[in-house]
Amino acid sequence: MKRIAVLTSGGDAPGMNAAVRAVVRKAIYEGMEVYGINRGYAGMVEGDIFKFETRDVTNIMSQGGTFLRSARYPEFAKLEGQLKGIEQLKKHGIEGVVVIGGDGSYHGAMRLTEHGFPAVGVPGTIDNDIVGTDYTIGFDTAVNTAIEAIDKISDTSYSHKRTFVVEVMGRHAGDIAVWAGLATGADQVIIPEEEFDIKAVVARNMDGYENRGKSHAIIVLAEGVTNAENFVAMMKEAGDTSDLRATNLGHILRGGRPTARDRVLASWLGAHAVDLLKEGKGGLAVGIQNEELVSYPILGTAEENALFSLAEDGKIVVNTPHKAQTKLAQLSRELRR
Amino acid sequence: MKRIAVLTSGGDAPGMNAAVRAVVRKAIYEGMEVYGINRGYAGMVEGDIFKFETRDVTNIMSQGGTFLRSARYPEFAKLEGQLKGIEQLKKHGIEGVVVIGGDGSYHGAMRLTEHGFPAVGVPGTIDNDIVGTDYTIGFDTAVNTAIEAIDKISDTSYSHKRTFVVEVMGRHAGDIAVWAGLATGADQVIIPEEEFDIKAVVARNMDGYENRGKSHAIIVLAEGVTNAENFVAMMKEAGDTSDLRATNLGHILRGGRPTARDRVLASWLGAHAVDLLKEGKGGLAVGIQNEELVSYPILGTAEENALFSLAEDGKIVVNTPHKAQTKLAQLSRELRR
Amino acid sequence: MKRIAVLTSGGDAPGMNAAVRAVVRKAIYEGMEVYGINRGYAGMVEGDIFKFETRDVTNIMSQGGTFLRSARYPEFAKLEGQLKGIEQLKKHGIEGVVVIGGDGSYHGAMRLTEHGFPAVGVPGTIDNDIVGTDYTIGFDTAVNTAIEAIDKISDTSYSHKRTFVVEVMGRHAGDIAVWAGLATGADQVIIPEEEFDIKAVVARNMDGYENRGKSHAIIVLAEGVTNAENFVAMMKEAGDTSDLRATNLGHILRGGRPTARDRVLASWLGAHAVDLLKEGKGGLAVGIQNEELVSYPILGTAEENALFSLAEDGKIVVNTPHKAQTKLAQLSRELRR
Amino acid sequence: MKRIAVLTSGGDAPGMNAAVRAVVRKAIYEGMEVYGINRGYAGMVEGDIFKFETRDVTNIMSQGGTFLRSARYPEFAKLEGQLKGIEQLKKHGIEGVVVIGGDGSYHGAMRLTEHGFPAVGVPGTIDNDIVGTDYTIGFDTAVNTAIEAIDKISDTSYSHKRTFVVEVMGRHAGDIAVWAGLATGADQVIIPEEEFDIKAVVARNMDGYENRGKSHAIIVLAEGVTNAENFVAMMKEAGDTSDLRATNLGHILRGGRPTARDRVLASWLGAHAVDLLKEGKGGLAVGIQNEELVSYPILGTAEENALFSLAEDGKIVVNTPHKAQTKLAQLSRELRR
Repeated sequence: MKRIAVLTSGGDAPGMNAAVRAVVRKAIYEGMEVYGINRGYAGMVEGDIFKFETRDVTNIMSQGGTFLRSARYPEFAKLEGQLKGIEQLKKHGIEGVVVIGGDGSYHGAMRLTEHGFPAVGVPGTIDNDIVGTDYTIGFDTAVNTAIEAIDKISDTSYSHKRTFVVEVMGRHAGDIAVWAGLATGADQVIIPEEEFDIKAVVARNMDGYENRGKSHAIIVLAEGVTNAENFVAMMKEAGDTSDLRATNLGHILRGGRPTARDRVLASWLGAHAVDLLKEGKGGLAVGIQNEELVSYPILGTAEENALFSLAEDGKIVVNTPHKAQTKLAQLSRELRR
Repeated sequence: MKRIAVLTSGGDAPGMNAAVRAVVRKAIYEGMEVYGINRGYAGMVEGDIFKFETRDVTNIMSQGGTFLRSARYPEFAKLEGQLKGIEQLKKHGIEGVVVIGGDGSYHGAMRLTEHGFPAVGVPGTIDNDIVGTDYTIGFDTAVNTAIEAIDKISDTSYSHKRTFVVEVMGRHAGDIAVWAGLATGADQVIIPEEEFDIKAVVARNMDGYENRGKSHAIIVLAEGVTNAENFVAMMKEAGDTSDLRATNLGHILRGGRPTARDRVLASWLGAHAVDLLKEGKGGLAVGIQNEELVSYPILGTAEENALFSLAEDGKIVVNTPHKAQTKLAQLSRELRR
Repeated sequence: MKRIAVLTSGGDAPGMNAAVRAVVRKAIYEGMEVYGINRGYAGMVEGDIFKFETRDVTNIMSQGGTFLRSARYPEFAKLEGQLKGIEQLKKHGIEGVVVIGGDGSYHGAMRLTEHGFPAVGVPGTIDNDIVGTDYTIGFDTAVNTAIEAIDKISDTSYSHKRTFVVEVMGRHAGDIAVWAGLATGADQVIIPEEEFDIKAVVARNMDGYENRGKSHAIIVLAEGVTNAENFVAMMKEAGDTSDLRATNLGHILRGGRPTARDRVLASWLGAHAVDLLKEGKGGLAVGIQNEELVSYPILGTAEENALFSLAEDGKIVVNTPHKAQTKLAQLSRELRR
Repeated sequence: MKRIAVLTSGGDAPGMNAAVRAVVRKAIYEGMEVYGINRGYAGMVEGDIFKFETRDVTNIMSQGGTFLRSARYPEFAKLEGQLKGIEQLKKHGIEGVVVIGGDGSYHGAMRLTEHGFPAVGVPGTIDNDIVGTDYTIGFDTAVNTAIEAIDKISDTSYSHKRTFVVEVMGRHAGDIAVWAGLATGADQVIIPEEEFDIKAVVARNMDGYENRGKSHAIIVLAEGVTNAENFVAMMKEAGDTSDLRATNLGHILRGGRPTARDRVLASWLGAHAVDLLKEGKGGLAVGIQNEELVSYPILGTAEENALFSLAEDGKIVVNTPHKAQTKLAQLSRELRR
């Protein structure tokens, strides 16, 4: 393969730029040409494509967001969009593509490969909810942004003897909540992977003030459970009489300069995706497992270690679901007071 | 005066600890003894008072919040509470008190002084809305926290071509919004001191996308105008068709390690309050104006340069209202594109 | 004036980019055209000049350094270089120039103006040592970078019971040292504007460990006095037996994202320089004094409030030297323990 | 085991406090009592020991350094010191001890265990050079501090077209240098695990300026190779004519608020050490390998997976040396330009 392209898709994540840089530089190092596609699959279909030079990515590694931009583009689920996209790529002589994004973005990569156009997925999302990798690009930065913010909220929480419910991103996975909760010594962490009893939450909170000498409290809540305002309302209804406040860290978790780990991880995964394309391989997603680079078929059978299978009814099934961080959640409970 | 005390009152602000440290160290330097009062006026009335040693404040300067804690205590508006407070202070032989907080807290200081117990106010609040000082302790840190967060949101805003309405604290004063907006190159800044026309806001925003080549936008909104969710709803109703998002920086603005400027300002103001008490002066608030230390009577006539006067109907009137940052707001408009 | 240019000169400082942005945007706002000159006076003489569009400065405000670059160019002290520079500017129809840099850079601006080509100086240096302004662009960021670093060194200093001598930039002015020392509660601050006795320094240090219950110490040293290694050697020779370490914060103080205050100050001063050029004024330097914009003749008599005069022997004399931060240095001594 | 103690030893590292917190809280969770030992083995021998309450560690997790302090204490290599230490511990009824520090500190733990007093080592050092663990506590924070500093130096390097040689800690291991170099896109990384030819270093550097369009360069140097000043001198002697500067990040790498990852890792390892002691196990060091908790005998044979063996001449031999980060170093070379 002599000419490849790269795009970013789905929600932006810190480190996506480092991954783009790695794809561009590694491809040039391997003697390939490399193109950038703006605005994800939308830009692919519309032909918003340009040739990368090695200097184009010189200062992007430390920048948050994605300078290739991202966009939702449901039309790419349809055959017509896919074929149009391939047509645009072929116009530039492009033979393979690296897709950096969440696992929704992997489906597009899979379709391209099915049509004979090799594509490789790179896991980029702050949520850490992609199967086939221990960590996603952006997760480490998001957790560090969260703990900085929670450390700040703790100052106020302490000063005013308040209970703060702090909502963090994570629709399906509580990883940000669990890590941030453990790393800030939060009193309670509420995640979608574990059931909770609002009465038990309130009982523990009130007991802290009444019997365990606590003077303030932080409860970290993953957005996949409910929003912070609702949770505070639920706590009040269940009898919590502490000075309750809701706050949502929201979009600040998505941005910011990537941490060292996200830059290194992105460099590693981006370069590995190029290695696979160079060998003509597609339909794969790269990841890191037990500190080693891995790659898996995006679609196939569980026996093939594929990330997803097609069920008989045509629906896509996750073969090995993202594992809940139950060990860390339990550790968090053992170390709080 | 040989023995003074210090308390923090109102919303916590970064740098309050540096101000407490300055009061403690300066008082000891001047040969006085100094006491701490926990939880503001509530702790004063309840006698939650302890003697400070010089080492007690050794590591607090770099910490956010207030380790003396703060509390609302409306009972202190009544004579009974004030007399009870003075009684508690006299039990410890305390002869004067430094009150660090917003201008609501100044009223208590004024009452104490009226009852023959000298008290001096030190301006501590992130809002920068206290009369008699160009800057309040905590403002500089809050603005820096705001620009870090807005820089992060800009990453996402750029990546997804969105318009973000970012709400920052400031009930009566738009200072945080104006400074943060200017320092991040925000497209529009909406503050309580300036009227706005939602149609003009939307017209400018849409014109940016349609005619001025803008691909995303940040609008900084002071909470005193309305909240971000409402503002987004208003924009939609007025015809904005961009991809609008609301986010509230909320309580993260209150916490965090104080900046150098807030630490220096707090040190300066705290030490000056001790100077005044040492001379037996009370009923004053300290401030910084044109880079010089100043102090003004809290209550009196405009001719006396007092911050507040009593109107005929008994209401408290601000003699020289906090000036709006209209020059900076105008500069912000001239430098945006 | 319809067409102006901007350059950065001398050591780079955080906020220079914000000043360039302000010059570009303000000029366009005022209906002028604006050009950028790369690499300071060297680029001027070599004709390394390009036209600015409003979008060229869109994302530079939050970046450290100067994207126009800077360079030493002693040749500009000679008439030949100056005339060549003017010739280059005139080729592009440029009628005035804004020079952002230290006061060394002001001399060039003065010469240009003497040759009939109006130039205005904007104070940009981390050292805060420029006459005619209370603060220079970059100082606030440098102090904040310094206190972050010193807070980190304090962690180690505490952990190991050590005395750290921390060297910060400042060849002629101790402002960074004084502010950083006060803001971190440093035990001693050594600056060029105050004499020191190494025996007294050691005596105080040893007394801290022996009699005042200190377990570690930080001494902040301005580079203008001597370097940290030397100072440690001097302390040892004078009998200090504590566990002494030298560290030099060095070049990290020059870089980094500018603080809110530096961005606002740079915006304000850059825009003001454009205002002056628009009125056809040159040979001036802008500044901020007592929170107000000011401008002064660069060269002239003391009566004209000029920053510099020509002495009879042809040497340049500073009319009103940068004032030492003796008040803050004294406050620092009163608040330490 | 009903009563254990914890100490920190060797160079301080961010996250040591989080590890102490984890030991204290986990021990209390398991129904044990837990004591703190100040100043490492020195404090043990001198009996500087106190009982921990659960609240004592409430706010330490986010703090850099070690609040238990650390100290060099070569006397502990002798039998007398070891027996005296055990005697002090037994006075308080302590039955086991957790030692947080570098692998030098492990030797003490091993000796205690040999004398029948179970001790477990927890890897705490920024250098990441401890056998038996993929990561040490403090490494992630140090790398992030390094990249922040190098990003700042890059601003200046770019502005002035300079080559900066940036020295980072790492006497035996180049891990900080490799990670920081890869994460900042440094042009060259010089580490003790790889030979270098100063002529090749200079050739590449000059080629960058002359043929590859580079305008500045960063070379990251591990202290184990030589210091930055020397390296610059070597480069000059080998013919480098670029504008060379040396800077040493030095002690700022040791301090600072720990990152999320260091807090989580420290919590995990500290708690695991308590688990081992609870089962009566000693003479072990805990670590993380392939994302799983592991523990190994500190001293023993290679077959037993022990970290160290005794050679016939009585010297201590490392069984499985810390592996060099050659893969990442190679990746760094492939992605630079």
